[in-house]
Amino acid sequence: MNRVHNFGPGPSVLPLPVLEQAREDILDYQGLGVGIMELSHRSAAFEGLLARMEQDLRDLLDIPEDYSIIYCTGGAHQQFSMIPMSFLQKEAYYLISGFFAERAFEEAEKFGTVKSAGSSKEKLFNYLPEVGAIPDTADYLHYTSNNTIVGTQYKEPPYAGRVPLICDASSDILHKKIDVTKCELIYAGAQKNLGPAGVTLVIIKKSFAERAPRKLPVMLDYRNYIKSNSLHNTPPVFPIYMIGEVLKWLKQQGGLDVIAERNQYKASLLYNLLDASSLYRPFARKEDRSVMNATFTIADKEVEARFLKEASSKGMYGIKGHKSLGGFRISMYNALPVEAVEALVEFMKDFERRA
Amino acid sequence: MNRVHNFGPGPSVLPLPVLEQAREDILDYQGLGVGIMELSHRSAAFEGLLARMEQDLRDLLDIPEDYSIIYCTGGAHQQFSMIPMSFLQKEAYYLISGFFAERAFEEAEKFGTVKSAGSSKEKLFNYLPEVGAIPDTADYLHYTSNNTIVGTQYKEPPYAGRVPLICDASSDILHKKIDVTKCELIYAGAQKNLGPAGVTLVIIKKSFAERAPRKLPVMLDYRNYIKSNSLHNTPPVFPIYMIGEVLKWLKQQGGLDVIAERNQYKASLLYNLLDASSLYRPFARKEDRSVMNATFTIADKEVEARFLKEASSKGMYGIKGHKSLGGFRISMYNALPVEAVEALVEFMKDFERRA
Repeated sequence: MNRVHNFGPGPSVLPLPVLEQAREDILDYQGLGVGIMELSHRSAAFEGLLARMEQDLRDLLDIPEDYSIIYCTGGAHQQFSMIPMSFLQKEAYYLISGFFAERAFEEAEKFGTVKSAGSSKEKLFNYLPEVGAIPDTADYLHYTSNNTIVGTQYKEPPYAGRVPLICDASSDILHKKIDVTKCELIYAGAQKNLGPAGVTLVIIKKSFAERAPRKLPVMLDYRNYIKSNSLHNTPPVFPIYMIGEVLKWLKQQGGLDVIAERNQYKASLLYNLLDASSLYRPFARKEDRSVMNATFTIADKEVEARFLKEASSKGMYGIKGHKSLGGFRISMYNALPVEAVEALVEFMKDFERRA
Repeated sequence: MNRVHNFGPGPSVLPLPVLEQAREDILDYQGLGVGIMELSHRSAAFEGLLARMEQDLRDLLDIPEDYSIIYCTGGAHQQFSMIPMSFLQKEAYYLISGFFAERAFEEAEKFGTVKSAGSSKEKLFNYLPEVGAIPDTADYLHYTSNNTIVGTQYKEPPYAGRVPLICDASSDILHKKIDVTKCELIYAGAQKNLGPAGVTLVIIKKSFAERAPRKLPVMLDYRNYIKSNSLHNTPPVFPIYMIGEVLKWLKQQGGLDVIAERNQYKASLLYNLLDASSLYRPFARKEDRSVMNATFTIADKEVEARFLKEASSKGMYGIKGHKSLGGFRISMYNALPVEAVEALVEFMKDFERRA
């Protein structure tokens, strides 16, 4: 077995010790004689797992008791619907900072009046828009903390005044400690920083959840998850279990401050190279750069093709940019080892010398 | 490692060779150097997997080309909403043959006029209701092919005349060959006969899907799955992969005719014992019994408690009946080996002799 350096944007690399533990637990979980995928979601073992995960998340992010931690399915896209169906009454605002932010906005348009709070679309989202004036009476402001495709990231949540703030943190949840209480709702599809695809973590203020109308589709009503502890029906047991293993791993690494420093270091290795290079052209505006996804292009398309081919042959996986932008995207989520970025940077330096 | 006999109702036992293959693929899928959970859903490898799975399913069930095969999330409960949101215009009918059938009916009531086509609730669903007269103009008739909690199963789909038939096959999909074309839509949460929890297989007639109104929530619109081949957003890659491995295993076993015979044999071992016993009292009406889930009680509660304790100590896992019925439920899905039923029957005979 020869594992490559996986810079894929999601589903993405998982910590090796987590994968090795999963291998053990597939045939026999905790000595019960059944594998983790064969375990009843009503069992004491699974309820114990959920309880431990809740505690780990509360520890890692200082989540107060008036927030619930729940697990949904359908990815961020299902949240794109659940949010306006639950909370859009008069009008809501969306910060349109990337392709997925725009999709969230367009989905919300199905359900009522939504307005742009700022957009950087005219420059293909290569910078972070500022929040314009929004009325205090708005139902909520939705923003995307990290824009995976373009490689920009809000260092701090935008100022929303008294308007409830909702954050799509799919591609940077748990990359550092954040103040959860600045948002009423934070959601994240698991497949970037949390675990495998198939589950969405939602951190939601309980009193906010109560604002939703009645008669929502059963699996699109946050209250059903809150009151059943995500056990209204059979949840995605294995993807949830994997998040649990990732949380354990994060704690073993020393918690989010250690992780944040490591992420900063990995990103600086790559951005320093990009800034010193005359071959590689960083895409995102310097002050808005993401520590999770770095994007760049090479002007000469023939050289770009050669770069991709050589990088692949050196075990650099998943570096091709999104089809809407072209070029390259290097995803450096929590689970990506420092060594992977070091190897990539070495290769890029060498390639530039020869180019 | 000492694996127990897992009679759990779902999530339930998976075929051992499938679990062993998953262990291999977790660190390195097909020599790509990334594990199956770390693989991009846009990769050629994953698209190849989806194509192979589609072919296997079409082979196993003779699914014609005018039906699409898609993968949703949110379990059967999400289908309970998607179906009326998509297809309920004037009125629809529900055959209320069990607890989940009733939940489907109650969910549909949120979205329009639904009526009972027959119910066995007055006897706690211990028999299968007949379909009463329903008008040809009904939008659809919904039924549950196998009632997991009570242990009843329709041998053939109910007669619906010209009314589109929709089947919740969550707990018996692929237990034998069926005529898919009798239904416009068949759905099944994976966690009983297909794979782990976290994905729902849907087989839907393409022309039927087109009847849905516009502006549905994006992940609740069957058309979005059909036109993107279930890749509108990141699907639950690993649960889907597991279904793929189960399909491969089914073919290796000799296909659904072999599986059906084995299921019949397993069920007969247990039902023959129940019919010959004066201790165990079968719950479901004899002619309506399920080959997937067998239910029984023991009159003396003290003996019942002792039975559960002894059975557990002999490695019989997941046999406790649903809380709404009490007693015992023995789930014998495709992946449950014959040996497990033989061991249980031996134990039950021995217990009765001593009781």
